[in-house]
Amino acid sequence: MAILDGSKLTRNAAGRMVPEIANGHQQVPYLGVDKNRPTGNKTGPPIRTANDYPADGDKRFVDLETALRKCGLRDGMVISSHHHLRDGDRVALMALEAAARIGVKGLTWFPSASFPSQKSVIELMDSGVIDHIEGSMNGPLGDYCTQGKMRGMGVLRSHGGRWQAIQDGEVHIDIAVIAAPTADPFGNCDGSHGKSACGSLGFALADSIYADHVIAVTDNLVPFPCVPWQIQGNNVDYVVTVDSIGDSSKIVSGTTQITRSPDRLRIAELVALFLRDAGVMRNGFSFQAGAGGIALAFVSYLKRMMKEAGVKARFVRGGSTKYLVELLEQGLTDYILDGQTFDLDGVRSIASNPRHVATSPFTSYNYNGKGNFASIVDAVVLGATEVDTNFNANVVTHSDGRLLHGIGGWQNCLAAGCTILAVPSFRDRIPVIVDEVTTLCGAGELIDVVVTERGIAINPRRQDLIDAVKGSKLPFRSLPEIKAEVERICGGKPQRPKRSDRPVAIVKWVDGTVLDSVWRVG
Amino acid sequence: MAILDGSKLTRNAAGRMVPEIANGHQQVPYLGVDKNRPTGNKTGPPIRTANDYPADGDKRFVDLETALRKCGLRDGMVISSHHHLRDGDRVALMALEAAARIGVKGLTWFPSASFPSQKSVIELMDSGVIDHIEGSMNGPLGDYCTQGKMRGMGVLRSHGGRWQAIQDGEVHIDIAVIAAPTADPFGNCDGSHGKSACGSLGFALADSIYADHVIAVTDNLVPFPCVPWQIQGNNVDYVVTVDSIGDSSKIVSGTTQITRSPDRLRIAELVALFLRDAGVMRNGFSFQAGAGGIALAFVSYLKRMMKEAGVKARFVRGGSTKYLVELLEQGLTDYILDGQTFDLDGVRSIASNPRHVATSPFTSYNYNGKGNFASIVDAVVLGATEVDTNFNANVVTHSDGRLLHGIGGWQNCLAAGCTILAVPSFRDRIPVIVDEVTTLCGAGELIDVVVTERGIAINPRRQDLIDAVKGSKLPFRSLPEIKAEVERICGGKPQRPKRSDRPVAIVKWVDGTVLDSVWRVG
Repeated sequence: MAILDGSKLTRNAAGRMVPEIANGHQQVPYLGVDKNRPTGNKTGPPIRTANDYPADGDKRFVDLETALRKCGLRDGMVISSHHHLRDGDRVALMALEAAARIGVKGLTWFPSASFPSQKSVIELMDSGVIDHIEGSMNGPLGDYCTQGKMRGMGVLRSHGGRWQAIQDGEVHIDIAVIAAPTADPFGNCDGSHGKSACGSLGFALADSIYADHVIAVTDNLVPFPCVPWQIQGNNVDYVVTVDSIGDSSKIVSGTTQITRSPDRLRIAELVALFLRDAGVMRNGFSFQAGAGGIALAFVSYLKRMMKEAGVKARFVRGGSTKYLVELLEQGLTDYILDGQTFDLDGVRSIASNPRHVATSPFTSYNYNGKGNFASIVDAVVLGATEVDTNFNANVVTHSDGRLLHGIGGWQNCLAAGCTILAVPSFRDRIPVIVDEVTTLCGAGELIDVVVTERGIAINPRRQDLIDAVKGSKLPFRSLPEIKAEVERICGGKPQRPKRSDRPVAIVKWVDGTVLDSVWRVG
Repeated sequence: MAILDGSKLTRNAAGRMVPEIANGHQQVPYLGVDKNRPTGNKTGPPIRTANDYPADGDKRFVDLETALRKCGLRDGMVISSHHHLRDGDRVALMALEAAARIGVKGLTWFPSASFPSQKSVIELMDSGVIDHIEGSMNGPLGDYCTQGKMRGMGVLRSHGGRWQAIQDGEVHIDIAVIAAPTADPFGNCDGSHGKSACGSLGFALADSIYADHVIAVTDNLVPFPCVPWQIQGNNVDYVVTVDSIGDSSKIVSGTTQITRSPDRLRIAELVALFLRDAGVMRNGFSFQAGAGGIALAFVSYLKRMMKEAGVKARFVRGGSTKYLVELLEQGLTDYILDGQTFDLDGVRSIASNPRHVATSPFTSYNYNGKGNFASIVDAVVLGATEVDTNFNANVVTHSDGRLLHGIGGWQNCLAAGCTILAVPSFRDRIPVIVDEVTTLCGAGELIDVVVTERGIAINPRRQDLIDAVKGSKLPFRSLPEIKAEVERICGGKPQRPKRSDRPVAIVKWVDGTVLDSVWRVG
């Protein structure tokens, strides 16, 4: 289907060639930032009746395979899962392998993200059980996609875009399988307690609300009521208990160490200094930083500066880590608004501190709503694989064209008051600042500042920021200037990937339009 | 419209005459308990775009009238409000009076309940601004309805039925006006803090999710984020600040005093003794009791028995009051699952104790869902205005036919494991146990026990309960026996109301079908 689908291409408002149809669904090409107007109404799942569910609230079911059969699993259905257990998750594979045993074909797997530990899904795609993945593909699964081996077309969405697609009915989830670190027999689920605790379960919320059928899978069953109920049992059909939903050593995975690279520490410090000098760091401000090494180091620098200046944040957004938890516990922020919980300190905090609040992509990121938290945040610090001299950026592919990363909340965060990309100017002797990004994930007009170890570039559109840092001694430079220096060091521009004319995945913008294509490589 | 609507009557499965059409909408007559099967999908509100909302999240708007205009208020629209401020609420009237100033006509007011302090709505109905009320009508508004003065037909629903009607698209809310004891400029609302604190805001949740337009009205604006966000700003269009959303002395209204009547204390004690002797009161059990004088006294008696027996509940449901809070704080229950918060102890507890959990009718009561909490509760203690000898009961009208009360969660609670009506055998010399209830609100097959000061009647359908209390010394009697005694005392049966053949309101069952009609009196 993918080859047929991708055969008709059109040029979108960003000048990118994108397929008109993907996986049989007509697509709307990207129209520009804030240009697409949604129509119609949100979708609704089938109306159920309590008469079909056990009066005593006990929805436990013998095993996942039987539950999938009971949900009417058949060829071509969409099965969803969440990635709060990250590279430690076992439940998504359990469900997909059970589907294989049942003998169905042509499924769409709709994870909020997929990870290297799930690479055996490749066998399920080879054998036709799974047609394609709609969702972030980290590592081998993305590689498989760019090799052109996936039958259907990959669809990459931001966390907010995933909510939007479900809410708007673009993606109809037939069966959601929700890994639950704690659950009760009614199906109330909590991520913040249990041996496989992962903190928030926000990525699974849309699935639980909108899917036709919902199966909760837990390794920690508690008597009703499971409190807090991050997922409501009122949306759950079956509860399945298993020995283990994941490998807890990998649930809190390895992205939560502060970088030790002097260059990256320098970048982190420059970001913090920029926010201070630009006056963004002031009483009552807010910021978001993820769990990468640079972002963590940035929080550490910023914290020191906040203490020195006697400044307190109103809220910080995460990916929560011990660095954000320290801010909360030391009174340097009123709240953590948590999208996902990255380490054990985060889990402990969200389980016990009412000021550490679980959020969902609806709350934080959904563009097709009545606003969301992302645009309220004063400053956000993000990464990128490539940035061009117009501040356009890429987060999903490398310069060799391989799809190796998901979008996460990256696109959604571009709505913040001050969007900063904190990137090394080159990686493995390949320049990060380029003439044209391999894959466009976010328009330069939304990216305000690029901070590298070689200097800070402010987007000329942000005259207010340029004015704000007048007199600052920070190393401000233009992107072309940094780029030229890096090309001298690296011996030239990155090699353009040898790519075919066949799109293997599309990158959605936050409003559901198609921003760019990922092409088969080689 | 009402006269035409009500002119065609049909007999439903309970033998009650009900209109086929109400307010222009075709109705499904009651088919029996657990007989109606819903079809179709839940409704969805219009898809919005963040581009239409302020990027800084500040949705504050000059005043309620302008906000209503901005929402496109026009003739015939449905305006909803919640009743967590009970008889102290000022916001619903503010909104309806603003609508009157705007000059629109024929509105449907869709409150979760209406109260005597809102009786000036009668003028708005007289003048045609409001066509009719769909929602509980306590006191004068109900009286007005039974006098046949309301243009449209009243529609009475349980709390769960209200959620079901909104969710299923039976009622389309054009504009929801939400009184918020605390809110932030983005529209996040919390009921548990502020000078007008009322605890939970669960009754407004459906309105916030499904209405086309949502206005939050607060007298306690806090900086973003308002935590907890019982109502999510992501569902709110405008935030209006006012000096006062209500009279706090009436927000915690007068239904929260233990009865001093010896007869009623006797009833309360009998209920507690019954639950003990029937073995319902055991470790890990659960119960629900409201805020009436008998219910409060019952909790007090039960608490003493629980202490004596060393029994602890897993959860209690309320209407929370200081009596439930004491159970929680003294370790006699693990959780309070709170549907509404009736007194200041309840407010303090829900604001600070993570084991005092706010619920919504979706969670607790929605019948057209994947189960709900009501059927998980072991025992519930309810009131009634009338009970017949087949255990059928009435909660909305008096024996004179006047509509004076709402259904509340009463119908939904009938799903509990053991449903007890705790009622005096007569009131003001009018027997409560009757041949046929004036208005049928719940089928006798769902009511297990009637406890009066003259004895306890167990429904013959519940042989298990009859067996369980064998050997108990409690005064078990049949309903006809109690009834005969009461009629001797009162000098006969209650007079049948002089009622017309014109229905002025319908009583919905939890599944959206029409269980009975309320008739014009006189």
